[in-house]
Amino acid sequence: MCRWMVYSGSPILLEELLYKPVHSLVDQSRHARMGVETTNGDGFGVGWYGTGDNPGLFHSIGPAWSNRNLRDLAGHISSPLFLAHVRASTGTPVQESNCHPFRFQRWLWMHNGSIAGFSRLKRDLLMAVDAELFPAIEGSTDSEVMFFLALTFGLRDDPPGAVADAVGFIEATAARHGVEHPVQMTVATSDGDRTWAFRYSTARQSRSLFYSTDVTTLRALHPDNPALRLVSDEARLIVSEPLGDLPGAWNAVPESMYGVIQAGQDEMHAFRPRTPH
Amino acid sequence: MCRWMVYSGSPILLEELLYKPVHSLVDQSRHARMGVETTNGDGFGVGWYGTGDNPGLFHSIGPAWSNRNLRDLAGHISSPLFLAHVRASTGTPVQESNCHPFRFQRWLWMHNGSIAGFSRLKRDLLMAVDAELFPAIEGSTDSEVMFFLALTFGLRDDPPGAVADAVGFIEATAARHGVEHPVQMTVATSDGDRTWAFRYSTARQSRSLFYSTDVTTLRALHPDNPALRLVSDEARLIVSEPLGDLPGAWNAVPESMYGVIQAGQDEMHAFRPRTPH
Amino acid sequence: MCRWMVYSGSPILLEELLYKPVHSLVDQSRHARMGVETTNGDGFGVGWYGTGDNPGLFHSIGPAWSNRNLRDLAGHISSPLFLAHVRASTGTPVQESNCHPFRFQRWLWMHNGSIAGFSRLKRDLLMAVDAELFPAIEGSTDSEVMFFLALTFGLRDDPPGAVADAVGFIEATAARHGVEHPVQMTVATSDGDRTWAFRYSTARQSRSLFYSTDVTTLRALHPDNPALRLVSDEARLIVSEPLGDLPGAWNAVPESMYGVIQAGQDEMHAFRPRTPH
Amino acid sequence: MCRWMVYSGSPILLEELLYKPVHSLVDQSRHARMGVETTNGDGFGVGWYGTGDNPGLFHSIGPAWSNRNLRDLAGHISSPLFLAHVRASTGTPVQESNCHPFRFQRWLWMHNGSIAGFSRLKRDLLMAVDAELFPAIEGSTDSEVMFFLALTFGLRDDPPGAVADAVGFIEATAARHGVEHPVQMTVATSDGDRTWAFRYSTARQSRSLFYSTDVTTLRALHPDNPALRLVSDEARLIVSEPLGDLPGAWNAVPESMYGVIQAGQDEMHAFRPRTPH
Repeated sequence: MCRWMVYSGSPILLEELLYKPVHSLVDQSRHARMGVETTNGDGFGVGWYGTGDNPGLFHSIGPAWSNRNLRDLAGHISSPLFLAHVRASTGTPVQESNCHPFRFQRWLWMHNGSIAGFSRLKRDLLMAVDAELFPAIEGSTDSEVMFFLALTFGLRDDPPGAVADAVGFIEATAARHGVEHPVQMTVATSDGDRTWAFRYSTARQSRSLFYSTDVTTLRALHPDNPALRLVSDEARLIVSEPLGDLPGAWNAVPESMYGVIQAGQDEMHAFRPRTPH
Repeated sequence: MCRWMVYSGSPILLEELLYKPVHSLVDQSRHARMGVETTNGDGFGVGWYGTGDNPGLFHSIGPAWSNRNLRDLAGHISSPLFLAHVRASTGTPVQESNCHPFRFQRWLWMHNGSIAGFSRLKRDLLMAVDAELFPAIEGSTDSEVMFFLALTFGLRDDPPGAVADAVGFIEATAARHGVEHPVQMTVATSDGDRTWAFRYSTARQSRSLFYSTDVTTLRALHPDNPALRLVSDEARLIVSEPLGDLPGAWNAVPESMYGVIQAGQDEMHAFRPRTPH
Repeated sequence: MCRWMVYSGSPILLEELLYKPVHSLVDQSRHARMGVETTNGDGFGVGWYGTGDNPGLFHSIGPAWSNRNLRDLAGHISSPLFLAHVRASTGTPVQESNCHPFRFQRWLWMHNGSIAGFSRLKRDLLMAVDAELFPAIEGSTDSEVMFFLALTFGLRDDPPGAVADAVGFIEATAARHGVEHPVQMTVATSDGDRTWAFRYSTARQSRSLFYSTDVTTLRALHPDNPALRLVSDEARLIVSEPLGDLPGAWNAVPESMYGVIQAGQDEMHAFRPRTPH
Repeated sequence: MCRWMVYSGSPILLEELLYKPVHSLVDQSRHARMGVETTNGDGFGVGWYGTGDNPGLFHSIGPAWSNRNLRDLAGHISSPLFLAHVRASTGTPVQESNCHPFRFQRWLWMHNGSIAGFSRLKRDLLMAVDAELFPAIEGSTDSEVMFFLALTFGLRDDPPGAVADAVGFIEATAARHGVEHPVQMTVATSDGDRTWAFRYSTARQSRSLFYSTDVTTLRALHPDNPALRLVSDEARLIVSEPLGDLPGAWNAVPESMYGVIQAGQDEMHAFRPRTPH
């Protein structure tokens, strides 16, 4: 089922968000509250921007809660933008190539949800992936196939449009195979500058997704909270479920919407699948 | 925290008990009901008698629920006596040498619980282990040290006495270090012929433990249950928590008791720690 | 690069061949003599017949030489027919779904070699796999794709013909993409009754492959060798490289040949790729 | 058997030395030339200073040559001082707690070699470890015990003296147990400011160890070598075996010597075990 989080803002150590909050992502690997399962122990992954041309990537098949390497790395890696994910498999094997986020050049992609009837649809979906991109697919998840469909439909040029096309294509393929309610997703994807997050499901009963209130507003709400002084003005989080209980800090992303974290003003728009041409 | 089970009876495939029951041990790796945590995803182990001089052993650091090898092995290995365990670490690393059951020659040992203040007591406890046995200690758990103390105090000759001595020694050591309520345990140990199961804690609030009703009685209770026809007359299980909901099938082991599964009549006796000589 | 072995005969413990010979398969995981690399430490796998409808399967990503579970399982599992493999990856990730042998229902398949230019050919090769079989592909190796092409072309009905078709199809696909010398292989595949072993490469410079001399002949050659008395009359091995140095025990399989181990007389025939219809 | 390397100088990406040299440490995980085995595939570890109070640590049980996480981390972590190690076990299990370097607060320690007869000596050696330090021992290697003996004998105050005491104590213990030639070692240890490297064995036939020629001298030797321009003046390496073939770049550390890398002048001195008081 999975849970994930995105951080964007001034560089911080990964541990500030992976471990320190009351209900951090690592806590959610064992005690998720708003997901299908409380346990997300089928692997962990984090992709972080800030060094090198492409984001760094760390994937581990062991559960996050017991991962010594992760604890250490999180205390020694800083980043202004990182995507982290704890996995609950929906059927495909637990292996590093099935951990999220997936990476293609400078892009990262992670997903909470599934494509219903994926084993029946997989062949058709794979065959729609651009032949140049196809060799880069390493694992066996529906999530990775969705990523490569989005890349095929132009993720690098128009991310919301490409994701709309990908979802539309999956839904059309599912209809041909008689699979109902195929798409269940929250997705985050980034190119290292901007990050897009989507909340959508064919049945309009999507997995939970929240974004953090902007820091200036939060400081006004909680003038005596010292932690808020340490956080940068432009810090923004997008999370499957809140990392803590600070009143007013978390806002649910409505059904069928997507948001964009970027320099300047962040945005939110309606999301509708499209039939790709 | 852990959950475990023992089976003794006619040879059966391991999967009959590891996977098929409604609340099998593998189910308990993710959905334990009566333990401290619902998740026991810090490793798995099974030791089985029936081939070779010593029991076979399979340990895995991955959670049991996602372990493909386990699923396969369980469908291909039969045994008349096996001990299986799902682990929730109380602090020591997740590694194969810290999985239960532990093995020494023909003996197996597994444990649910802990020794409080173990890091303070470890040195003294280790130094009490017989010098001949000491090199055989491979891991870093309190459970394994308890096993080797029991071996030192004569497990191979008088299992209940040796365990009583070991527990008494641990309690005395803890008292010297000012550690309260040191011992929390359910333990199972076997030599391939008989199996002993203990339920005890210094604070008299022990982890759950159940034994199965003898099969003849169960058949009388449930004359229309076909599964009971397939089970051998002498089949006996000892489990941390029931594998299913069949009325009358499970009996709680009282506090401070130990049981013996053996040919002929099984037994149950009081358990009291002793000061070893 | 890989090394593998097949045993067929009376049931024996896996360890008799996986560990005990001077140059056992586990020794070859670190000290292969006749392969491209001396080290085959990218995983291990064994499939064994004898219990259940389908063969059992054990895959491990750790090198065979340090695999404690393997050492133990090999001492407790007996089988009249087993296929074992140590892996040296030709580029795809080290993960359990990329270990050999691969299994489909009652069939096992393992491979030493590669498909040159696989990343360029992969899409076309995958598209040729039967749509009903496609969902069963779990990994990302060329070896597994070759297996599923063989299944598509009728492995279950006419194994040599199906493999000839698969190889022919791969060569034709490679020609279309301008890839030279695409196929390098020794392959073993079994349905639990008969086992076929192939030695072929497009460039006619194939990886090494040997079959054992029949036991009756060996006993005549070495009348004072007690080990040969313990071996069953119909015992037969096919190996990437000899497990030991007993004179006359090993016979090289010539280029472009395949052999069949079966009840009654074993056979050897020429192997030529075919253009599938 | 193991191979290791230390880098000290201006911050560089770990990959500059872990991967890029012709005979990098990762290459040595599979093709070591000067060690007992060519393969060092029983785990990998790197400890790096530069962020946080204590060094970061990454340990992996998989062989270094196939470690995707390592490849990625090495391309995204920079450090002015790091210690890296590829392991060939001398008997103890392959697990993360048995990977080097070991860490205690700000100290790192790694070792190539062994303590002969360790299973016989282990109990006595462990008992000599300071009771306050004892709980920090996590694994089962002779290397880690040596580290904790050195800490007990004052590593934090006088590293060469403490190591001399530790080695002397091991040799005295071995003599009591009738174990010949107990100590075989090259060891590196660091506190984040200075690094000490030792080459010693009781039999005076020690594993290989080299230090790099100072950069100024190297530039004079090879005025047309552009890579030397990119390296900082104070860059220094200590390695089990040379990372490349540049003439004049590598100098063997003689038997029974230790060196110190530090700000200002590096040093080299004789090393002699001492009987600790």
